[in-house]
Amino acid sequence: MQRRRVIQGLGLGVLAAATTACSREAEGPAAAADGRRFRWKLVTTWPPNFPALGTGALEFARMVEACSGGRLSIKVYGAGELVPAFEAFDAVAAGTAEMAHGGAYYWKGKIGSASFFSAVPFGLTAQEMNAWLYYGGGLDLWREAYAPFGVIPAPCGNSGCQMGGWFRKEIRSAADLAGLKMRIPGIGGEVLARAGGTPVTLSGGEIFTALETGAIDATEWIGPYNDLAFGLHKAAKYYYYPGWQEPGTTLEAIINRKAFEELPEDLQQIVLTCCKAINDQMLAEFTARNSEALVTLVEEHGVELRRFPDDVLRRLKELSEQVIREGAARDPLYARIHESVRAFQARSSAYLRVAEDAYLRTRDL
Amino acid sequence: MQRRRVIQGLGLGVLAAATTACSREAEGPAAAADGRRFRWKLVTTWPPNFPALGTGALEFARMVEACSGGRLSIKVYGAGELVPAFEAFDAVAAGTAEMAHGGAYYWKGKIGSASFFSAVPFGLTAQEMNAWLYYGGGLDLWREAYAPFGVIPAPCGNSGCQMGGWFRKEIRSAADLAGLKMRIPGIGGEVLARAGGTPVTLSGGEIFTALETGAIDATEWIGPYNDLAFGLHKAAKYYYYPGWQEPGTTLEAIINRKAFEELPEDLQQIVLTCCKAINDQMLAEFTARNSEALVTLVEEHGVELRRFPDDVLRRLKELSEQVIREGAARDPLYARIHESVRAFQARSSAYLRVAEDAYLRTRDL
Repeated sequence: MQRRRVIQGLGLGVLAAATTACSREAEGPAAAADGRRFRWKLVTTWPPNFPALGTGALEFARMVEACSGGRLSIKVYGAGELVPAFEAFDAVAAGTAEMAHGGAYYWKGKIGSASFFSAVPFGLTAQEMNAWLYYGGGLDLWREAYAPFGVIPAPCGNSGCQMGGWFRKEIRSAADLAGLKMRIPGIGGEVLARAGGTPVTLSGGEIFTALETGAIDATEWIGPYNDLAFGLHKAAKYYYYPGWQEPGTTLEAIINRKAFEELPEDLQQIVLTCCKAINDQMLAEFTARNSEALVTLVEEHGVELRRFPDDVLRRLKELSEQVIREGAARDPLYARIHESVRAFQARSSAYLRVAEDAYLRTRDL
Repeated sequence: MQRRRVIQGLGLGVLAAATTACSREAEGPAAAADGRRFRWKLVTTWPPNFPALGTGALEFARMVEACSGGRLSIKVYGAGELVPAFEAFDAVAAGTAEMAHGGAYYWKGKIGSASFFSAVPFGLTAQEMNAWLYYGGGLDLWREAYAPFGVIPAPCGNSGCQMGGWFRKEIRSAADLAGLKMRIPGIGGEVLARAGGTPVTLSGGEIFTALETGAIDATEWIGPYNDLAFGLHKAAKYYYYPGWQEPGTTLEAIINRKAFEELPEDLQQIVLTCCKAINDQMLAEFTARNSEALVTLVEEHGVELRRFPDDVLRRLKELSEQVIREGAARDPLYARIHESVRAFQARSSAYLRVAEDAYLRTRDL
């Protein structure tokens, strides 16, 4: 019922079709393509051509152009080229750009629950995020959360499990988190603060110097592929895992609803289908490139890989649950989304324990 | 160089564009859509409407129809409706159908190395398969393997890690594999034979009765979602994991090359993009539905989950490597594909050990 209501609220039949898992065949003849041409702007939260993320947005635009035979062409702007990174959501809401590519957690000041649609600490992996979004009610909740702003979200990429970050000194117990100055945004930062650390917000371009000069003791960034490109191994010796703060970050496309509704149905479907295709392709790119970069970091640069000690992870998990419970107590939509994720994760964890998780342990025997 | 050669060999610019990771923007104006309409047949290796697999093929057809505004409509046939399941490849090669949906290991009698493009024992997970196919050279090798038959393959779905199967009695050590009559096809079956068991080939519809009457001692099928639908829990008590024989099975689309080349470029791109979108969506569906079905099997039907003992898994792994080494010694293409997968898996295993694998263990602390 909930789902039907939300989708009708959007008034977009094609969205309903796109989320229906088992729809049998197109009902009746589809609308014939009309000859109109559309030119869209897509703003991103990434520096121009940023590996995997910015290039993923470019690849999306190329795919839409090719699938539409040039009827919908999309110009991609790096952060700051049309609007600053963190104004991307507002730019799409205002219609300054028809689309954006970013991460939902950037909008948590505006939508308290937004982080659930990108990543929360100790939350879902990439495989689980897609399962929750497409088949566990997650995408309907996401559309509901963004609907008041006149924009439509869609999953459009995933980084996979990120790394815990770069540390200038070893973390031997939860006590070592006290006083730690670390660049870590979002809920992860709140958790670090409760553990006695000092979360610092720095843009990508500021991180290397801050770490190298000791202005910060540690930073998380993304994973081996992007971290190597930033040279973070030259500024800190220890590379910690796992990325408890971002276990499977979904990247998003944001679409201006009015612009979307002005498209003929075939172009609407092409936009949503290309989001899915990029969602598939970007995780593959991160997985392949991270695998290569990790070899380089360890074998060529002598980086020391360290797993966070169990007591550190237990403490961070406890504090993460505390932060999320408090969020749910303040905001009914947050509470509903959290309950949906929690119930899903209980089932998917039990399943992965006998599937991918059990298999990966077996392969290492 | 290898890649360039293969793609030029196909003579399909759009394929090159579709696999190029970082192509910046469409080069020049794309060809305008023409008004021609195409009607294709798609044969499958699945019973009509078979959950996730057959319905995934229907969903693919619906997506193509919608993205093309009805210019390309695809009629989906279940196994036996136009041609028998295992004649799907030949039907596409002959042009009887323009497309098929199945699994590459079904064609290993024709193409010795085909199993690498679906699943091999102790091989890649779903996440790794996509990374290898799109960014590790796998898809180019796959196209090369299928090119002599005039057909083009594309990944089009993934089951995720399957289950080890249903057993009427417990497996306590590798010695218990001796004399075991088990329905297990493909390389997994060869491995079981070397372990002293008797692999049996049965079609889906024959499995339940064979297991219930004791004509076979065990069977593997897919995972909780499909196994529950087949009622296998009523025929055997023990449900073993992990699915060492199929750790992340890729499903495939097979496209008749001549039919593909007759399409205008935008429709070619739509076909390939919809394959990627289904590839994304189907793994999500399996993950969500398997998670739900596992709860039902354990909580409502009292199924006993069992992990294969370490010595059983070690023995199966050793024998799997033996079977694959012998395959490589017989066939130069098999050897090249094996080497590509082996090198990729060495890197991706090391990476996942600090990413998804490490995280899943942490979450259970």
